[in-house]
Amino acid sequence: MNDRLADKKVLVTQSDDYMGPGIEALFQNEGAKVIAIPGVVPTGDKFNDYVNTAGGPFDIVVANLAHAPCNGPTANIDNNDWRGMFDTMVEPLMCLVRHYAPIMASAGQGKIVAITSAAPLRGIPGSTAYCSARGAQNAFVRASGLEFAPTNVQINAVAQNYVSNPVYFPEELVSTEKFQNHLKRNVPRGRVAKTSESAELALFLASDKSDFIVGQVIPFSGGWATNT
Amino acid sequence: MNDRLADKKVLVTQSDDYMGPGIEALFQNEGAKVIAIPGVVPTGDKFNDYVNTAGGPFDIVVANLAHAPCNGPTANIDNNDWRGMFDTMVEPLMCLVRHYAPIMASAGQGKIVAITSAAPLRGIPGSTAYCSARGAQNAFVRASGLEFAPTNVQINAVAQNYVSNPVYFPEELVSTEKFQNHLKRNVPRGRVAKTSESAELALFLASDKSDFIVGQVIPFSGGWATNT
Amino acid sequence: MNDRLADKKVLVTQSDDYMGPGIEALFQNEGAKVIAIPGVVPTGDKFNDYVNTAGGPFDIVVANLAHAPCNGPTANIDNNDWRGMFDTMVEPLMCLVRHYAPIMASAGQGKIVAITSAAPLRGIPGSTAYCSARGAQNAFVRASGLEFAPTNVQINAVAQNYVSNPVYFPEELVSTEKFQNHLKRNVPRGRVAKTSESAELALFLASDKSDFIVGQVIPFSGGWATNT
Amino acid sequence: MNDRLADKKVLVTQSDDYMGPGIEALFQNEGAKVIAIPGVVPTGDKFNDYVNTAGGPFDIVVANLAHAPCNGPTANIDNNDWRGMFDTMVEPLMCLVRHYAPIMASAGQGKIVAITSAAPLRGIPGSTAYCSARGAQNAFVRASGLEFAPTNVQINAVAQNYVSNPVYFPEELVSTEKFQNHLKRNVPRGRVAKTSESAELALFLASDKSDFIVGQVIPFSGGWATNT
Repeated sequence: MNDRLADKKVLVTQSDDYMGPGIEALFQNEGAKVIAIPGVVPTGDKFNDYVNTAGGPFDIVVANLAHAPCNGPTANIDNNDWRGMFDTMVEPLMCLVRHYAPIMASAGQGKIVAITSAAPLRGIPGSTAYCSARGAQNAFVRASGLEFAPTNVQINAVAQNYVSNPVYFPEELVSTEKFQNHLKRNVPRGRVAKTSESAELALFLASDKSDFIVGQVIPFSGGWATNT
Repeated sequence: MNDRLADKKVLVTQSDDYMGPGIEALFQNEGAKVIAIPGVVPTGDKFNDYVNTAGGPFDIVVANLAHAPCNGPTANIDNNDWRGMFDTMVEPLMCLVRHYAPIMASAGQGKIVAITSAAPLRGIPGSTAYCSARGAQNAFVRASGLEFAPTNVQINAVAQNYVSNPVYFPEELVSTEKFQNHLKRNVPRGRVAKTSESAELALFLASDKSDFIVGQVIPFSGGWATNT
Repeated sequence: MNDRLADKKVLVTQSDDYMGPGIEALFQNEGAKVIAIPGVVPTGDKFNDYVNTAGGPFDIVVANLAHAPCNGPTANIDNNDWRGMFDTMVEPLMCLVRHYAPIMASAGQGKIVAITSAAPLRGIPGSTAYCSARGAQNAFVRASGLEFAPTNVQINAVAQNYVSNPVYFPEELVSTEKFQNHLKRNVPRGRVAKTSESAELALFLASDKSDFIVGQVIPFSGGWATNT
Repeated sequence: MNDRLADKKVLVTQSDDYMGPGIEALFQNEGAKVIAIPGVVPTGDKFNDYVNTAGGPFDIVVANLAHAPCNGPTANIDNNDWRGMFDTMVEPLMCLVRHYAPIMASAGQGKIVAITSAAPLRGIPGSTAYCSARGAQNAFVRASGLEFAPTNVQINAVAQNYVSNPVYFPEELVSTEKFQNHLKRNVPRGRVAKTSESAELALFLASDKSDFIVGQVIPFSGGWATNT
């Protein structure tokens, strides 16, 4: 066990999905006290209940937000799927930052790490709704990261793709020959990342080693996307 | 009068706001038949009525969508303002592309030009909700632009900032000494653009001179933002 | 014949290569007086002779600079090839801007359009020397474009890829089945651009319709690259 | 003392300049055996002598390359300054990657971290030569990073700005009231970074915690630049 997050109190949202389990495991191993709350982060009035249950204050908030994939042609985007993505991934991110960043600013320090996606950095045909919602997240991280920069609160994003996780890249998909060929053609690194590898970038951004990095959306995709 | 859009049938949405009047004027002057529909573009079931009223088919759709500014600290973002931005600017863009792009693809050609913003390209403290909604638009344009690229339908965006318009940069703001100093420090070009200048970029993207450009978000901000 | 460049005096460099012939043809057709100078643009003392021969003053300079492809693994980069690329494409661009931009600034207006590449925007394995030299060009356009923005001189770049031209995409390469399959997998637009299509973007950037656009590197690659 | 680089053999080039001293100190403190070679990295035939002197093989190469600032208007760029920048910062980077990356690939693993600049990501008037040279570096890192990605060699860059260092931001400059005001207006973080903070990002990219990150140019500038 290491101590890169010794004595840090951390909130991990939607902890049963996406990067939640991997981040919880690594952060605990690094000495953090992790409050891991499973399930979708509610918005509106119910968000107040959420933060009351969560407790706090937190040194670090990991805004890990995901929605079941609903890919398909733009022509077939379902209104409910569209709204579901924004209601699950975008508005909760705003609620989390709106609530926790000012508290952190008052405390004189804090870290918010959003686990988003590299998808909007390049754009994926057939995933336009997803790209739009994740693009909204990335833009919010950039702008709010700059806004809170003077207060010693750092807000950044891990914009990942091709990371092994049960929501988007389950093992039974990754292991197929078709997907392995897709990887060879599209991902310079030639493989998917382990969850723990993405969690290490989140850890770097959550630690006191990265206090000068703000409003940054860092691609984490094995070379699939390198621009932001 | 020129003829760069001779015989083109064009839909301009929310034609009374933002770049609507400027684009309507220029496009008509270039020979287009412009259907200019004022007011917010509805979503959900009402969108069907909207397209029925609009008529069509269109050679070109200008997705000009805007919301009254509601800037302020992230800590004070109002839930209704937040949703209003996404309901007015983001979901209508999806509805327009979802409806018109497949029709254009069937017809073998078409152009959709979204008038978005450069704000999310750099991020603006105090405008995080706006940056997020415009970022969602830009990401949707990129992804859907790539999706429809093989069908000879070109979808691109004018990502503007510092363009004279009654919504965001009314003349009474621009003419103040404070704003002029702001321009000198922040906008390399040292001035705001005329509406007609932005409309010229929209015209280029709407014309048959730009058939190889797809999924592109082009900054138009006098050098304020140069990355996408 | 149109007149989008009526009465404009234009210098096109290395006019026998890359986009030179296409730009010369289109610009002349639009009413420009084009001084087209074939061959590599020299640097150092010989650059003075070059500009004396070229005449001037020019309203528009098209910095069209190319080097014979010398692709291959990074491990095999030849020192002379490396220096050849920078000596042919990068230093001449600096010489052209250093000389002509201040003259244009004194005259109160001017346009410099550099024909560069989208290659460095994504990065191409096996073309790392080329990516580096074109990346130097793009960075120089961005920085000098911002520097001259206040003087009403606009400096921008067409960052192209997959444009038909004898240097990089000769017809005998493009027409092979292998290359056509490569196009389908890698270029959303599914084809190479005609030279004239790239020239149209150069024309837009050279015309008085784009006076608010400065320091901008515009990808022109059929969706292969959409970031800058 | 920690052990994040335990047993790693590291080459730090131009170790007396730029980020050299800071990286040498941090990497040694983390257990690395650091070979720190002061002075400019030579090119051409002399590069062979350099690598012979350096020894090796290395697990990690830190391509730390800098040139004395020679800012000023583009109109006044001196030919020797221009070439000096490219000869000191750009060609040596190529030589280092060309030599060491294939050796690392044969060994089955390796890390190259280039310490470059965020300057070309936004573009700085009056520093166009510098932006161009650093842009060449960033483009080379992106392309070569993708090329070597399949070999388990990771090549990435720290694209920094506003980091305290004797070359570009000496303490006597930073402490002036004028510079402090400049920071407040231009750097959201409101301060310069300590050398050790930049070194921490280099450490993350040099460690085995970042094996999925390739060809990435990471802005490190306190929010001054957030795009790549």
